[in-house]
Amino acid sequence: MSFRTIEWRDNAVIMIDQTRLPGEEVYNTYEDFKSVAEAIKGMIIRGAPAIGVAAAMGIALGAREIIADTHESFFRQLENVCEIMARTRPTAVNLFWGIERMKRVAEAHRGKSLDQIREALKKEAIRIEEEDLTICRNIGKWGATLIPQGATILTHCNAGGLATAGYGTALGVIRAAHEAGKDIKVFADETRPWLQGARLTAWELVKEGIPATLISDNMAGFFMNRGEITCCVVGADRIAANGDTANKIGTYSVAVLAKENNIPFYVAAPISTLDLSLADGSQIPIEERHRDEVTHIKGIAIAPAGISVRNPAFDVTPARYITAIITERGIVSGDYLFGLRKAAGI
Amino acid sequence: MSFRTIEWRDNAVIMIDQTRLPGEEVYNTYEDFKSVAEAIKGMIIRGAPAIGVAAAMGIALGAREIIADTHESFFRQLENVCEIMARTRPTAVNLFWGIERMKRVAEAHRGKSLDQIREALKKEAIRIEEEDLTICRNIGKWGATLIPQGATILTHCNAGGLATAGYGTALGVIRAAHEAGKDIKVFADETRPWLQGARLTAWELVKEGIPATLISDNMAGFFMNRGEITCCVVGADRIAANGDTANKIGTYSVAVLAKENNIPFYVAAPISTLDLSLADGSQIPIEERHRDEVTHIKGIAIAPAGISVRNPAFDVTPARYITAIITERGIVSGDYLFGLRKAAGI
Repeated sequence: MSFRTIEWRDNAVIMIDQTRLPGEEVYNTYEDFKSVAEAIKGMIIRGAPAIGVAAAMGIALGAREIIADTHESFFRQLENVCEIMARTRPTAVNLFWGIERMKRVAEAHRGKSLDQIREALKKEAIRIEEEDLTICRNIGKWGATLIPQGATILTHCNAGGLATAGYGTALGVIRAAHEAGKDIKVFADETRPWLQGARLTAWELVKEGIPATLISDNMAGFFMNRGEITCCVVGADRIAANGDTANKIGTYSVAVLAKENNIPFYVAAPISTLDLSLADGSQIPIEERHRDEVTHIKGIAIAPAGISVRNPAFDVTPARYITAIITERGIVSGDYLFGLRKAAGI
Repeated sequence: MSFRTIEWRDNAVIMIDQTRLPGEEVYNTYEDFKSVAEAIKGMIIRGAPAIGVAAAMGIALGAREIIADTHESFFRQLENVCEIMARTRPTAVNLFWGIERMKRVAEAHRGKSLDQIREALKKEAIRIEEEDLTICRNIGKWGATLIPQGATILTHCNAGGLATAGYGTALGVIRAAHEAGKDIKVFADETRPWLQGARLTAWELVKEGIPATLISDNMAGFFMNRGEITCCVVGADRIAANGDTANKIGTYSVAVLAKENNIPFYVAAPISTLDLSLADGSQIPIEERHRDEVTHIKGIAIAPAGISVRNPAFDVTPARYITAIITERGIVSGDYLFGLRKAAGI
């Protein structure tokens, strides 16, 4: 990878500022947990696996900031840090998964000194980041087996290196197919309102030298209908036990159009994206973001002031539209209720 | 109507500059046919019926500009004016319909003096504009019968007063239902890349006091799937004999999503939009516009420079997705091959 999405360095968290891409490649340094929480809220970092890593690193920073005489006081304050981190974004389950993992590590070290607990939390956060990279490479390896030679792959939003610790989930599949010499091409939906496709996916693909074409979201159906798309690959923010998948707004529409045109529709996501506590997608909370994301682009108004706005950031694609879910442990299709539990090792 | 889209005044053509809406309401004056052709190409005026009117007025201006000693020379130069006008936009058939109508009027007055011919052309252009307004009101009257009390109507692009001589086709249906006291609400797709929905439809609806919500194109499926949309109404740029309909890019996707969610999908268009010479939509030429429309918004780059772009301005919705086509002569559904010919009076 020619960039780092997030890393722990000298007791600080370094993140590429995704709000400034593709124009500028700027790396921000965060030295306290509250600024990490703000960075997640403000989408300096985004993408389900990446915010899992960011939350974990934020908690490790928070643990260093806590001033406590007793273990009881430390754990009470750590709980507060975790709560603030959990309130940043509601939809991606990897955030909560990362927080839970950090809490378990703290709990397992309760008998140790506070500095030992702080050190264990730091190591765990770095481990989550390193594991994520391995997970993405495995998702890529499995996913590439589904991509035919010469395929044109449509992707929505950014499930790339920028959405993970690196390499990506959907873009991991694309990178792996490219590295395997499959002569692929990519169509990237621009993904309004936040333009993750135009700004981030296009930037990653240009940097990687993978042939890529940018389109508006409403053009995807046109190219599917003309037979120009071989398959669709997207990421996920939360997957329910039955396979229903929350992902960036517009994913549902891509899936419906793919089904109508007999085009395979794949979801690429780590096991940490599964939320087997939810029977189906209807229970996944959908974040609604600020109206300005729709009415303004880079601060410039594109709509009249008096207009009402809705801005759901995610939608849920029912499992029946999903050809297969690609995880780091293999490809799940057909009976998701059985297959996802098996992949999760339950 | 609280604005005029296009009008003939003092031997000049006045148009509201649609590239500057919603920020500024500016009216441009055109005194020669070439600048009218440039205005159509540059989308100062757009919308199938409106560019039919603009082309006719442009030809009337052109006829005034011609310096000719003989009728032969005049008609040769008029043919050239018509050809330049025909090369502005390829998809909307109303453009060619308007040009043909002007040619027929010139031909019918061949025995008269050049000034009489020029006068007849001016009158015909004004008549086309006036007729368009009447046509839109009739489309609205018929269409409103399909809109239930309390409906939430999704529309795509701008098929409004700005796309016609006034009142609109799809927005004509919405205006008529509103005027009938039906307590309707509208969802307007922003319609990338040119943002006709955000800039023009939202502006018209706010001005009209019709409750309207702006969404990104990729949100339409989300709201349909949640049961928040009663029906969809869109305009058309060209309708083939079998009912296949070319309209703004993204219309096909709206139609597929509507069908998948059992929501009626209506096309509202004047008879002049019919092209019965085409058996089906596969023969409709689709304009591809400049890459900058996708990569830049108001001159600001939103994508990396190295990315490829596709920018089809229209797509074709197969007739099987269309619940009914609303014309000024009534509502056509079912057997379009029969119904459209009947509506056209053939």
